[in-house]
Amino acid sequence: MDISTAYKDNNYKIHVARNILENRLNTYTEQYESVYYIIDENVYDIYKDTKLSFIKSPLVVTEGESFKYVSPLMHTMEELLAAGIKRNSLLVVIGGGATGDAGGFIASIVLRGVDYIHVPTTLLAHDSAIGGKTAINSEHGKNLIGAFYRPKAVIYDLEFLDSLPRAEVLSGFGEVYKHAMLNSPELSEELVNITADSIDVDELPAFIIKGIETKMKIVIEDEHESGSRKFLNLGHTLAHAVEYKYKIPHGQAVMLGIIAALYISNELNGTDFNIGNHIDYMRRHGYPVNLLKEMDIDEMMQLMMKDKKNHRNDYISYIVFKDQNTPEVMDIKIENLKKILAALKERI
Amino acid sequence: MDISTAYKDNNYKIHVARNILENRLNTYTEQYESVYYIIDENVYDIYKDTKLSFIKSPLVVTEGESFKYVSPLMHTMEELLAAGIKRNSLLVVIGGGATGDAGGFIASIVLRGVDYIHVPTTLLAHDSAIGGKTAINSEHGKNLIGAFYRPKAVIYDLEFLDSLPRAEVLSGFGEVYKHAMLNSPELSEELVNITADSIDVDELPAFIIKGIETKMKIVIEDEHESGSRKFLNLGHTLAHAVEYKYKIPHGQAVMLGIIAALYISNELNGTDFNIGNHIDYMRRHGYPVNLLKEMDIDEMMQLMMKDKKNHRNDYISYIVFKDQNTPEVMDIKIENLKKILAALKERI
Ligand SMILES: NC(=O)c1ccc[n+]([C@@H]2O[C@H](COP(=O)([O-])OP(=O)(O)OC[C@H]3O[C@@H](n4cnc5c(N)ncnc54)[C@H](O)[C@@H]3O)[C@@H](O)[C@H]2O)c1
Ligand SMILES: NC(=O)c1ccc[n+]([C@@H]2O[C@H](COP(=O)([O-])OP(=O)(O)OC[C@H]3O[C@@H](n4cnc5c(N)ncnc54)[C@H](O)[C@@H]3O)[C@@H](O)[C@H]2O)c1
Repeated sequence: MDISTAYKDNNYKIHVARNILENRLNTYTEQYESVYYIIDENVYDIYKDTKLSFIKSPLVVTEGESFKYVSPLMHTMEELLAAGIKRNSLLVVIGGGATGDAGGFIASIVLRGVDYIHVPTTLLAHDSAIGGKTAINSEHGKNLIGAFYRPKAVIYDLEFLDSLPRAEVLSGFGEVYKHAMLNSPELSEELVNITADSIDVDELPAFIIKGIETKMKIVIEDEHESGSRKFLNLGHTLAHAVEYKYKIPHGQAVMLGIIAALYISNELNGTDFNIGNHIDYMRRHGYPVNLLKEMDIDEMMQLMMKDKKNHRNDYISYIVFKDQNTPEVMDIKIENLKKILAALKERI
Repeated sequence: MDISTAYKDNNYKIHVARNILENRLNTYTEQYESVYYIIDENVYDIYKDTKLSFIKSPLVVTEGESFKYVSPLMHTMEELLAAGIKRNSLLVVIGGGATGDAGGFIASIVLRGVDYIHVPTTLLAHDSAIGGKTAINSEHGKNLIGAFYRPKAVIYDLEFLDSLPRAEVLSGFGEVYKHAMLNSPELSEELVNITADSIDVDELPAFIIKGIETKMKIVIEDEHESGSRKFLNLGHTLAHAVEYKYKIPHGQAVMLGIIAALYISNELNGTDFNIGNHIDYMRRHGYPVNLLKEMDIDEMMQLMMKDKKNHRNDYISYIVFKDQNTPEVMDIKIENLKKILAALKERI
């Protein structure tokens, strides 16, 4: 399945299917004078003798998030320059969202920009296939340094997902779930039904594709995060705080954040999301729902108030639902939010 | 005098005049929630109690080229983040081309891009007012890491030039001269006449403005350096080698490179530039013309061959004149170029 982006210009294809990497890549690489590979070390270890054996002298980089810092980034950039990268070279970045973010950022600044292709290897990284965001972390927080820079293509070879650790499947599924909720109640229901007993990545391709399309629709409506793009933060306000405090994978925290968002929607907008069902479902699949019971509300509030998306004092911006179909941004008074989260805590 | 860029979009104004900084800046800063200043230490030392006294808590950065490296750059970026820079903040960068290059690069990547204004304080920096290039240096060479990122405005307050050291005046004048040559024989002649006895920056504003306009015309014809933008490298092929070897300021090396380019044009294209006059003129103003006599031709060739603009083996791309009016890119056989430069050496 190929998805094409629908920007005004600089569009690219997102190829999604099993076992497509080498063939698809060939159709691109032949247009370049030289090709350089940046590969996550865990991914390379697993696939170097199989799927990735066609790659000669890759730059194997430190795993996941540990690559999203200036010092490993600069090291790899200097290696590329030492190896003779040119403006008409292609950079291929193979790994999860973290490797993609840092590798894409390198592509955006080396020689003031070379073309790159991202090959996502995690479920969560379906999220970064669209949006053109690249970034690394600063001492002062995640993703504070980066660029908007689109790849020439995304080649999402789903075979990589076979080796994904369970914790990462749960994390990636959090964003798949979020995109389904932002798409429609019908799609969410379908997703919940198909994963009622277990989350099997083999059953997810259609939802991954829908997820990418949903994100694309939102991103294109609002390329610079002033309006509807904020909806993509569904579940993220509380998630960032929980993630920071309890060091759980991002998408798992998003799932907990979604429970909170639905609960708040019921309280403030009179929606009737079945919170009990959502909690049961997430517990069943191993999400750490109990953190919503353990959390210290004052501490979470402090962390949320630091969130860069807030623009009014004494208020926190939260993505909630106006009705089952319609997300919206709501500025909630801090005291009010505290009370609602305390009530949610009691319900867990 | 205000020049407006003529891109398809994201245009900006270049304000050129004496004593305009504070007033002009005010018309921009009021549109932003907060404003941060990056200022070259030498410039700040000279003007902190006068022109720059209106600025509270600037980030004063290491002088000129020494700022164009990852480590001082990151230090300043973290300072900006610590100070609470937001997406809707404005960054004002005050200094020469080097401070502008690194400060513009910071603006392009902090929070994935904030608006910035460059306030050039050198003669050479008229060259960076157009083109949208920002960059820092790599271990492997100058300007290898950067971004194309346009300022919101350039405020070129010519009063800063009063304190410019003589060597920097000569350097900046090299690019003024180059732009005049790329513009027309008439403009070059006028420039040579007005500077026959001495190079007085007070007499240059009209030529600075013409220089900016000439560069703009070329850059807009060719935004991504495939065609006519290469003409801006007039004098630069040999200059880079001379500059690297003898550590003289960039624009002074460009002047020597222009002599070589004119000599080559005479030899290969039958133009009749008066080399003797050019040499006399440059000597009179203190350009180190004798380096053209001292230089080891094999060594210069080696350095030129490393130049990233070369694409054919055994050839060096050189900007020459087809006739007095028309620059062109010529691929010159290495053996041939060696002979011509050896003959030029004899003539000095
Ligand atoms: N740019 C965007 O739009 C965007 C969107 C979402 C997330 N992100 C970023 O993505 C990052 C999270 O991405 P992620 O969850 O993919 O994490 P990740 O890239 O950190 O990978 C998680 C772990 O899984 C390992 N791994 C990757 N692929 C594997 C495979 N096929 N088999 C076995 N192990 C594998 C990695 O080595 C790592 O240890 C964050 O830094 C986040 O900021 C960016
Ligand atoms: N982006 C572009 O398009 C572009 C174009 C041309 C040059 N550049 C870059 O610009 C740099 C050279 O610029 P530059 O020649 O302006 O040098 P610079 O910024 O290094 O400044 C030269 C010296 O003059 C000092 N100085 C600056 N302004 C002064 C003033 N008003 N009074 C007294 N001292 C002052 C500086 O502290 C420094 O020591 C190079 O790094 C080059 O790559 C970029």
